[in-house]
Amino acid sequence: MRVLVTGATGFVGRWAVHSLAVAGHEVHGLSRRSRPADGAPVAGWWQGDLLAAGVGESIVRTLRPTHLLHLAWCVEHGRFWQDPANLDWLAASCRLLRAFVAAGGRRMVGVGSCIEYAPQEEPIDEREAALHSPFLYGVAKHAFHLVLAALAGQVGLSQAWARLFYLAGPGEDPARLIPGLAQRLLRRQPALCGSGVQVRDFMDVRDAGRALAELLATEVQGPVNVASGQPRSIASLVRRLEELAGETGLVQLGGRPDRLGEPPFLTAKVERLQREVGFSPEHGLDDMLSTALAWWRQQEPRAAVSS
Amino acid sequence: MRVLVTGATGFVGRWAVHSLAVAGHEVHGLSRRSRPADGAPVAGWWQGDLLAAGVGESIVRTLRPTHLLHLAWCVEHGRFWQDPANLDWLAASCRLLRAFVAAGGRRMVGVGSCIEYAPQEEPIDEREAALHSPFLYGVAKHAFHLVLAALAGQVGLSQAWARLFYLAGPGEDPARLIPGLAQRLLRRQPALCGSGVQVRDFMDVRDAGRALAELLATEVQGPVNVASGQPRSIASLVRRLEELAGETGLVQLGGRPDRLGEPPFLTAKVERLQREVGFSPEHGLDDMLSTALAWWRQQEPRAAVSS
Repeated sequence: MRVLVTGATGFVGRWAVHSLAVAGHEVHGLSRRSRPADGAPVAGWWQGDLLAAGVGESIVRTLRPTHLLHLAWCVEHGRFWQDPANLDWLAASCRLLRAFVAAGGRRMVGVGSCIEYAPQEEPIDEREAALHSPFLYGVAKHAFHLVLAALAGQVGLSQAWARLFYLAGPGEDPARLIPGLAQRLLRRQPALCGSGVQVRDFMDVRDAGRALAELLATEVQGPVNVASGQPRSIASLVRRLEELAGETGLVQLGGRPDRLGEPPFLTAKVERLQREVGFSPEHGLDDMLSTALAWWRQQEPRAAVSS
Repeated sequence: MRVLVTGATGFVGRWAVHSLAVAGHEVHGLSRRSRPADGAPVAGWWQGDLLAAGVGESIVRTLRPTHLLHLAWCVEHGRFWQDPANLDWLAASCRLLRAFVAAGGRRMVGVGSCIEYAPQEEPIDEREAALHSPFLYGVAKHAFHLVLAALAGQVGLSQAWARLFYLAGPGEDPARLIPGLAQRLLRRQPALCGSGVQVRDFMDVRDAGRALAELLATEVQGPVNVASGQPRSIASLVRRLEELAGETGLVQLGGRPDRLGEPPFLTAKVERLQREVGFSPEHGLDDMLSTALAWWRQQEPRAAVSS
């Protein structure tokens, strides 16, 4: 298969590209950024902004990919949940999908989010759960999934919709929880956290990238939770990160208020991913956190020089 | 208020423009077509294709409307329910909405359809009914409503979503049921119909245009059925049309198979429209059908000359 991956330099995208290349597929990366020097070996690289008129259409028309893994979307931490640019990404995704179908594309995997779901206390079954996001990001992702599924059913396009839950690993946005704490712990600085009572599903980003790559190579249709299936409180995750860093007593849980609108539970059933896609995670929680810590340790000298 | 109406030369749009102008608002029409010679007096006319990149944005930036009534969408009879161009209209509508908010727009009324609803046997309450359209058109309209409502809630935009049911009146697409029958009856030609057992809600298009105009001038939020509230079988409608034309015996109900996927019931509760918007229809069923017949009678000589 000839695969086009959008968002190919992103936090998840780079691992999806890696897994697809390792599996021997013809992989083409698309990103606003140039091809990373340390990236996986790919058959082609397309630098362009999908928000610009005609860019996605032109690439798809030229390349004629059989498979499309669409990761690009607005992801700026602290902003993307309510970013009006979610509408731009919905529009750009519609244009890309249209072009992909017109160019004879066979299968598309779109990438959604656990925040599409209406909050509920049970692990979420992707075939049964209500979809009613409190955030524009979740609504816009869901809106795109609706038209993807409807168009695909009509024209015979194979499609799946991967809903990512919480991720951690190398290269995560430094403003997010685990990178923020990792940096404070490595510098032996105190850190204030929210209550940590929220229960989440965390997955290693390398596993998430590989799950998307494997899902793309199947014929599984419709929504698929991409998650570990292991519910865990933020507090227990934070405590484990402290232990692995060898620095206890620095992080104060409850030291600042929780973010408004954070649902108490957001966890996944993963039967579809594990049984239908046949995916098993490789990296457990300790591996995920240790790798994140090691990655931030590597960045530290550079940070020290530049500060 | 300064109103921009998209789809201003359309079947419904021309009546919405008329009602807004009569009510004394500053109305600007936007259409791919030039300003109709027999159209209502408007403050401005903008000729342009919303599907072309930047066109809607540029008009909204220049005009800075306070109110937006967005009717333009793909409507080609026999095609629009499954037209892939529904994705283009979703994308164009997202761009238009973004531009409207950025230009300080205060209130938008989007126009959806009864086909957004999952089929059900009761008259449909717009606040309770499940939304699960069997057609791409309904899905794409619903997808746009979702992002409109989410963005509006976030930025303080006032918004309503008018779901049109079945309409009839002057200027309807000649390929549709009532125009098709009217033309056959006026020429005293036999006509084959489906079974006619489907129950629908029909409204005079002049009333529908005025309902949209009145809805735009309120602060009613969210979905509003725009319909008569009078369920009626297609068969009874067809029989009444025959009587008004003075031509019985020409139309054979059940003379051809029903269209695949036609839901048996599609009727509306209209409490929101009548109580919250305060709208009352002016034109009853006989008026609607007689006006359609008279309009087609007027077209006949022209059709005869041109054929």
